[in-house]
Amino acid sequence: MLLRKVSQSSALCGSILRIPAGLSRGQRHAGAVVAVQNPRLYASQAAEAVLEKTAAVGSNTAAKVEKTISTESKSYAVNIFKGQIETAQVFPYPSALNEEQEQFLRELVGPVDKFFLEVNDAAKNDALEKVEDDTMQGLKEMGAFGLQVPSDLGGLGLSNTQYARLVEIVGTYDLGVGITLGAHQSIGFKGILLFGNPAQKEKYLPKLATAETIAAFCLTEPASGSDAASIKTTAVQSSCGKFFTLNGSKIWISNGGLAEIFTVFAKTPMKDPKTGEMKDKISAFVVERSFGGVTSGPPEKKMGIKASNTAEVYFDNVRVPADCLLGELGEGFKVAMNILNNGRFGMAAALSGTMKGVINKAVDHAANRTQFGNKIHNYGVIQEKVARMAMLQYVTESMAYMISGNMDSGAKEFQIEAAISKIFASEAAWTVTDECVQVMGGMGYMKDTGLERVMRDLRIFRIFEGTNDILRLFVALNGFQNAGNQLKSLQKALKNPIGNAGMLAGEIAKRAKRKAGLSTGLTLQGTVHPELAQSGELTAKAIEQFGGVTEELLLKHGKKIIDEQFVLSRVADCAIDLYAMVVVLSRYQHASSLGSASAQHEKMLCETWCVEAHERILRDIKSLRSSQSRQLYKNMRAISAAVVENGGVVAPPALGF
Amino acid sequence: MLLRKVSQSSALCGSILRIPAGLSRGQRHAGAVVAVQNPRLYASQAAEAVLEKTAAVGSNTAAKVEKTISTESKSYAVNIFKGQIETAQVFPYPSALNEEQEQFLRELVGPVDKFFLEVNDAAKNDALEKVEDDTMQGLKEMGAFGLQVPSDLGGLGLSNTQYARLVEIVGTYDLGVGITLGAHQSIGFKGILLFGNPAQKEKYLPKLATAETIAAFCLTEPASGSDAASIKTTAVQSSCGKFFTLNGSKIWISNGGLAEIFTVFAKTPMKDPKTGEMKDKISAFVVERSFGGVTSGPPEKKMGIKASNTAEVYFDNVRVPADCLLGELGEGFKVAMNILNNGRFGMAAALSGTMKGVINKAVDHAANRTQFGNKIHNYGVIQEKVARMAMLQYVTESMAYMISGNMDSGAKEFQIEAAISKIFASEAAWTVTDECVQVMGGMGYMKDTGLERVMRDLRIFRIFEGTNDILRLFVALNGFQNAGNQLKSLQKALKNPIGNAGMLAGEIAKRAKRKAGLSTGLTLQGTVHPELAQSGELTAKAIEQFGGVTEELLLKHGKKIIDEQFVLSRVADCAIDLYAMVVVLSRYQHASSLGSASAQHEKMLCETWCVEAHERILRDIKSLRSSQSRQLYKNMRAISAAVVENGGVVAPPALGF
Repeated sequence: MLLRKVSQSSALCGSILRIPAGLSRGQRHAGAVVAVQNPRLYASQAAEAVLEKTAAVGSNTAAKVEKTISTESKSYAVNIFKGQIETAQVFPYPSALNEEQEQFLRELVGPVDKFFLEVNDAAKNDALEKVEDDTMQGLKEMGAFGLQVPSDLGGLGLSNTQYARLVEIVGTYDLGVGITLGAHQSIGFKGILLFGNPAQKEKYLPKLATAETIAAFCLTEPASGSDAASIKTTAVQSSCGKFFTLNGSKIWISNGGLAEIFTVFAKTPMKDPKTGEMKDKISAFVVERSFGGVTSGPPEKKMGIKASNTAEVYFDNVRVPADCLLGELGEGFKVAMNILNNGRFGMAAALSGTMKGVINKAVDHAANRTQFGNKIHNYGVIQEKVARMAMLQYVTESMAYMISGNMDSGAKEFQIEAAISKIFASEAAWTVTDECVQVMGGMGYMKDTGLERVMRDLRIFRIFEGTNDILRLFVALNGFQNAGNQLKSLQKALKNPIGNAGMLAGEIAKRAKRKAGLSTGLTLQGTVHPELAQSGELTAKAIEQFGGVTEELLLKHGKKIIDEQFVLSRVADCAIDLYAMVVVLSRYQHASSLGSASAQHEKMLCETWCVEAHERILRDIKSLRSSQSRQLYKNMRAISAAVVENGGVVAPPALGF
Repeated sequence: MLLRKVSQSSALCGSILRIPAGLSRGQRHAGAVVAVQNPRLYASQAAEAVLEKTAAVGSNTAAKVEKTISTESKSYAVNIFKGQIETAQVFPYPSALNEEQEQFLRELVGPVDKFFLEVNDAAKNDALEKVEDDTMQGLKEMGAFGLQVPSDLGGLGLSNTQYARLVEIVGTYDLGVGITLGAHQSIGFKGILLFGNPAQKEKYLPKLATAETIAAFCLTEPASGSDAASIKTTAVQSSCGKFFTLNGSKIWISNGGLAEIFTVFAKTPMKDPKTGEMKDKISAFVVERSFGGVTSGPPEKKMGIKASNTAEVYFDNVRVPADCLLGELGEGFKVAMNILNNGRFGMAAALSGTMKGVINKAVDHAANRTQFGNKIHNYGVIQEKVARMAMLQYVTESMAYMISGNMDSGAKEFQIEAAISKIFASEAAWTVTDECVQVMGGMGYMKDTGLERVMRDLRIFRIFEGTNDILRLFVALNGFQNAGNQLKSLQKALKNPIGNAGMLAGEIAKRAKRKAGLSTGLTLQGTVHPELAQSGELTAKAIEQFGGVTEELLLKHGKKIIDEQFVLSRVADCAIDLYAMVVVLSRYQHASSLGSASAQHEKMLCETWCVEAHERILRDIKSLRSSQSRQLYKNMRAISAAVVENGGVVAPPALGF
């Protein structure tokens, strides 16, 4: 066996000699691992945090070369960046409810739906610019403000999957209410749930679960949006150590004007354990309005989600007891990112519901509106819109419950997937609603139809809790970090080819095949339902190509990849499509296994989606490899620079004046 | 010479024998001319009207085979559908102002801009849901309501180009005001300008020019949107012939609640001169509110353009004097379509201004906002957005003034171009504004920034005055009509190859070359500036390919092409891109010839645009030819049918309940 390994490795040495260019280029960058300390990175510090974390994990692996190269992450998204398929989290479609949970959820779905149908008035909330008092009271009584608070602390104790299902209903009817609920429990007090100590939980959660007190999440500041780590709010510990003095101001805080309890992020001066120098680190605190010195501004006037209160919150010498520290001192950034990361699936679930509601409207109109002598659903232009709406909803819903299921099953690595679901859901819902307006024509533009409100509400979803642009960078950089670790190990192994022959054999052969346009044997056969074998193959092929291009990019740019945003956003687009493909394949499998009457329809959704996604991915990959694209990026940089320098359009008016 | 012709033709007979499949298939469809009498057509009757007109022209040409095949239209857009380049209207970039006109316009631009900057308050108009009284008064005094009314009738007597320039300013600041002005003069009384007799002009225009009376355009009805020909409002002539009795109701009428003068479209029973049967035909009327029986509903509540009044208008036994007939009896549809067709360039001009304003905001933010230690304009994601904004604005502006210039130069064929400019401008402005919101993040979502209002205002532009979906069909069907006439002539010529040898020689050779992937010699060399030779070549090549695919589609589908909406919308996308390409090439040429300091920048806009547009076109063409696409269309039809039948999403919830 050993002999066989060695003889393979000597054959491989030849291969190594034949493909040195890329690798040596990569080595010049001192390994291709993405170390994100560069201040020029315009990616959320979320990316930075995760990258730091994975980098730390990665650094231990340098010695254990073989292990790193093998699939060590259970995340599908992490693995596609290495050109690998890891099905653990995606097949079969997770079904994370036990019998009792399912029973409980079934009992909740009806009443919640009925409440939104009969009591809540989204148009009125929008016009009032607040959730009607009766509705608020009803929501509180239903337990809607404490869905995931443990039942012994007064909440409903729902799992993520159960939460997703109820939030989907909220999203179907009223996103303004959705934000009010979500700002409270998905981010407002989620920190207490995730990082609170028992005393904090007992003190705060019961009143929060019943909404006797409302919570808000205070991260963003006037000068600190995407760059969350640059916040200026400070919390200085007293010399006695018993309290912190909090100063600063936060903007665009959902529930900011209503909340009594705030999760606040502030800089705390800390001694660096290594250097002994003082350094500002972010810490998280639970702050009560009753502490004094906490004030909030008037409700902001916004495009949409008007029912949700948004306000500035000011902290003026607020005396925060030391036991209000949430998590460890200096670990606040991790707290913030975990809260956001844990909440993203909820957005996908809510927007999946929004899309369902919108599709109902579009279809109702298309089925009843006659123009040119026919119901308009008979016309191709309308059919294409309806079909695309259905596909986008299907993908979003499939993502939402896959991630909530993964989380409920104890998965720890879902940050790329969660970010993808947020990007995808917010863009899908936007597109679906925009197209529904188009289907309905003038009617879609009128307030009465209720669609324009949904559109206004939706516009913020592509911005808040990490803009989609930043999250795309986050997805790509996270992926590159993992792929980079693998590549670094590979490069290390190349220095000792004999000792690492077994591992190198597969890796080098894979690259040679990929280069020759041959399949490396990557397949979803046996995993994907035979009826969708073709779509499975398209997915596997696309992953193969994607793995190839990510490696080329790492070798080419090394750690400078973080500055290549034109590249990164396209890489993220590929990853999003690749996740969407596998998610619907898995969902179909599930539907088919249940003998669902709609399996045939779902098969068609999958096939159509996969064919188009595959094409988009190949197009992106082609562009990532082409010198023409690089020229276009260069042009766009120059165009932008000129427009910025000129303070607006550079070309003189067409008429000259 | 004749001999040479004949000998060529005998050689060609062979060629004909070698490529019969397509042609004979086309012949089975009784010629490929698109006769749009099919009630299943979901295209605006605008398309129908124009197609009927061109069909009539076409029928005379059957005998004059050679003439039809030669370039008989001066429209660039018409010709690309035949795979031909006609530069008459696109090169050089039209400069349609004489010295006096330019001087007058220069004198107007400053004060109008100053008025919008200092007097008009767009946010306030939006909040009030009307144009402030003082602003209305100011606009009236400036002559803004009578821009194109001849000066001897109290207007400013502006040409289309002059009008475009002022409307661009309005669009920069306030689209609500823009619609108030446009509903009045671009459509409200444009019919009187275009089709009014001298008495009508003298009677109405002076008061309209000063806005002593406000005008509105009354076409749309509750059951009649895109299908304008299906209106139910009736105008029955009295037996004495002296008046018409008007009954019916119109919806979504801009200025409907303010107007005194209405251009109303109604069905009039008419005797068919051929059959003697009574048939309803549409006629246009000038109707005064003072006639009695004219009422209007309350202002509609809309997503945007709130400053513009939108209302239902009811006509209840209105006695309309016979001399209020506008144009010929039964020719009202032509009146309506001409009004709309003549107004579209104005929308492009206004939205070009809107984009300029929006870009200023984006750039101001990008240049001043620091995140991650750098001004955000340094990041690729922002640079790409800014560059794309600049390109979209450049294309739109170039289209607007090219079309207004063509119109002012007396061009009669600009309907495809005008439709393209409306589609392009409304989508470009939407994208630019959407991206600006994204660049500004949370700030973009707040009312204070003024962007969300622009976004809300813009959403209607893709819907009104012909939805973009319908206009895409209009563009494609118009093009096919012309290409079909040529093809029909070619097919006729093939029946007598000897007699038509000269013509056939070129045509057959062209097809053979196209089939073999060779250039047919189509070029923009010598026309396009040498510095943009490559972009010119991309344009010529794309036109060549496009001409090929349109012919294939005509041969394949024959007159049934009108039912192929999946195909038609993609064909329209190609045409839009092809027009955009030539328009910017021409604009650059103009800038360069003036020695504009920004020529280098404009060159980069052109090159970047042309490379990407060329790629999009090739991709569309590939998809139009692929059997996979046909399968996808089939899937989408089936998906849509199932969703419609089910009244919404078909797949059961991911959790099963």
